[in-house]
Parts: sequence; C-alpha cells; structure tokens
Amino acid sequence: MKIELWSDFGCPFCYIGKKRFEGALNKFAHKDTVEVIYKAYQLNPNAPKVMVGAPNVNFAKGHGTTPEAATKKFEMFVEQAQTVGLKYDYVNIQLTNTFDAHRVAKWANEQDLEAKVTDRFMSAYFTEGKNLADVDTLVSLCVEAGLDEKGSREVIESNQYTDTVNAQIDEGRKAGVQGVPFFVLNNKYGVSGAQQEEYFSQVLDHLWKEAQELESIAGADDSHTCNDEGCSL
Amino acid sequence: MKIELWSDFGCPFCYIGKKRFEGALNKFAHKDTVEVIYKAYQLNPNAPKVMVGAPNVNFAKGHGTTPEAATKKFEMFVEQAQTVGLKYDYVNIQLTNTFDAHRVAKWANEQDLEAKVTDRFMSAYFTEGKNLADVDTLVSLCVEAGLDEKGSREVIESNQYTDTVNAQIDEGRKAGVQGVPFFVLNNKYGVSGAQQEEYFSQVLDHLWKEAQELESIAGADDSHTCNDEGCSL
Repeated sequence: MKIELWSDFGCPFCYIGKKRFEGALNKFAHKDTVEVIYKAYQLNPNAPKVMVGAPNVNFAKGHGTTPEAATKKFEMFVEQAQTVGLKYDYVNIQLTNTFDAHRVAKWANEQDLEAKVTDRFMSAYFTEGKNLADVDTLVSLCVEAGLDEKGSREVIESNQYTDTVNAQIDEGRKAGVQGVPFFVLNNKYGVSGAQQEEYFSQVLDHLWKEAQELESIAGADDSHTCNDEGCSL
Repeated sequence: MKIELWSDFGCPFCYIGKKRFEGALNKFAHKDTVEVIYKAYQLNPNAPKVMVGAPNVNFAKGHGTTPEAATKKFEMFVEQAQTVGLKYDYVNIQLTNTFDAHRVAKWANEQDLEAKVTDRFMSAYFTEGKNLADVDTLVSLCVEAGLDEKGSREVIESNQYTDTVNAQIDEGRKAGVQGVPFFVLNNKYGVSGAQQEEYFSQVLDHLWKEAQELESIAGADDSHTCNDEGCSL
C-alpha cells in the first residue's frame, strides 16, 4: 500500500495530521506493507529567510489579519497540537522559508532518511523555535536525523533538488491538492486535512480489504486460458 | 499504471494474449505511463527436459486425452494464433520444461530485458520448434535477446533465481491465478485469458480514467487544512 503525503514543514496541521496518521499506522496490523512517500508543498513561497518582528505580527501581515487575530489562531494551533502530545511554541516560532529544508529532505530520501528528517524539521519548527531557513540550523538538524554533515551542507548551500521539490509541488497541484496535509492513497483516494486517528485507521483497513481481492472489469469472455489440466477454447 | 502478467512460455494462449494486449497497448495514447511486469507460471512443472515421441502423443498423455483429440486441439491453437499473425508449429513443437527459461528471464529482468527475452522464448517455442529446456538453445535465444552469452550460460547451468520463480508462482496463486495468461492491473483488477485486443483497449482506458481523479473515503471532516490563505480550524 502506498501513501503519498504532501506537506510543508511549516504547516501546523501537517505535523498534527502526520502524528495522527502515524498513530493509526502504528496500530495497523499490516504496517509493514505500507510505504509512506513524502511530497513537498510550500504554504508560503515568499516567506523570508530571517523573520523580523513578532510571530503574530508576521502572521497577520501574511494572512491579511490583525496581530490579535493571529494570536487567537496560534492558541488554537497550540490546542490542537496538544491533542497529539505536541507542545507548539508560538512565542519563539520562526515563520521562515522552508524551500531549502525541502531540498535537503529530497537528498535524505535517497538515503532512506526522509521520514526522520521530516519529523526532525517539523519538531524543530513548531516546538523548538528553530529557523529552518538558516544554513547552520538546518545542517545540525540533518546531522541529528542521521545525515552526513558535509553532504548536508553542500546540498543546502547549493540549489540541488530544486527541480525535484518544484516537480512535487506541481505534481500535487495536478493531483488536486489545494491545501495540506493531503494524503493520496494507492494513487486512488485523496484525504485532505489532519483527520482523526480513528479515521486514518478506517482508511487503512479499507485499503487493505480492497487489496485482498481483485475486481474484474466487465466485458471479458471466460475462454482462452490454460491451466494444469489444459486450455479452454 | 502497472500491469502484471502471469504467463508460461509454453502456454499457447499466453503468447496470443500477450500479442493482443500489446496490440492494445501500442494504440494506447498513454502507453509511456504503463509498466508491464512479467510473472512466472508453470503449466506443467513435470514436463521433461527432452520430449520423446510426437507432440500429440505427449500432449495426450499429459492431459488424459487421445492423440487424435490432441491434434484437434493443436489445430485450434494454430487457428487462434493466426488471428494475431503468429504461425504456431505444432509439428515440430517441443513440449518441454520451462523452469530454466523462467529462471534466466528473471536474470534478464535485472537488465531490463525480460520483455525481449519473453517474446524471444515464446516465439522460439511456438513457431520455431525450439527446446526451451536445452541449455545451448536457451543460451542462443538469450544472446539474440541482448543478454551476455557467458552470463546467460552461468545462470542457466546454475539454480539461480529458483526462489524468485517459485515466489512469483506462489504470489500468483495467492492473488487467485488459476490459469494463464492472467493480468493484474494496478493491483486491483484481474483479467483472465487471451481477451480480444478491443477489450484490453477498454481496460486501459478504464484504468487511465480512474487514475485521473481521486476518490474520497467517507467519514472525513473538512477542517484542519492549511493553504496559501491560512489554516481552517
């Protein structure tokens, strides 16, 4: 079973949705048959490399709202995060650009470390006030996730994997992704949003059952096969 | 789109079905999105390495029928083969074991040559009276399909890829394959038999349309996503 997950490291519901999905996955009896593929998405391609001013002021500017309304929104994110055991820190959060983080995550993918890197980046962004657009910070996080320090720095300081990231964003758009998190299951089903863990459990069961028996497509005739006993004409 | 095809090189309807499927595939507008994966199947695991006696006598023994009935069956295979432009030669056909051919085909797979090898083996078996259980014959056919001579001989004379072949036969059984050819489409649909080209065309169109839009699974709520404009709570 193939699960493609479009998300951005700086998307509050992506981290929450990912946790809920993982909760369901960890309880799923056939977990070892599930392949999770991470796909890049950028909520704010124009986000700066360094945030100037308070998070709520920045958020308010970016979303055409007031700092007070932004703070209210932050409180709701924090509340939602608590439901999956995460402590979002919207006092120290750095609302910066995630493109370089996406690029190096695609390099991590080639080493089977994208899952670890993704988790490390999201945790750093939402719970540790880390700036994912800062080269040294990104390198440290990569190393913590198991990547080579020199290699990580090389990728981050270059423009490698730009095409890969853009292709995934584009692929998402073509698949109908209008917001994140967005899950595509077995190339067939789309699930939008940080759904509850129970829902993801149902979805995994649904996919599993569906995979157990083949359907047929109308219009076939039943002759012209061969088996141990001969060929039917 | 993924098409898995279970077949045996010595299965008269497999070669015919493969040709019809390929006819449809060649006319399919999105041919380049289709991956065909060959899976091993053995109609007669007890077939000898060298056939002794006439084909119809051998066939009759193997299928609990008379040589005359076998000849009648051969005539019908020949007739069916003509519908796809193939000249089956049931006078010179060698009804021998295909296991070694399957093994070396799996080696060919690693070099992206399994399609060529499969076609070469089927043509040799049905139209050229070649013995696929004979080492030198198999090596020659492998070389004609683009494989290295020394490497082919090494694989054929060893027991390499035995596990791979058996695993594919077993996988087919678990997927519900009771006769060949058997096509499994996108892990979801099963098509049994040498269906007409028109049917395969419809099936490819069906799969393509299905892949264009994602379905949803009931029970999701529509909140908790983020997009360029913000996050819905």
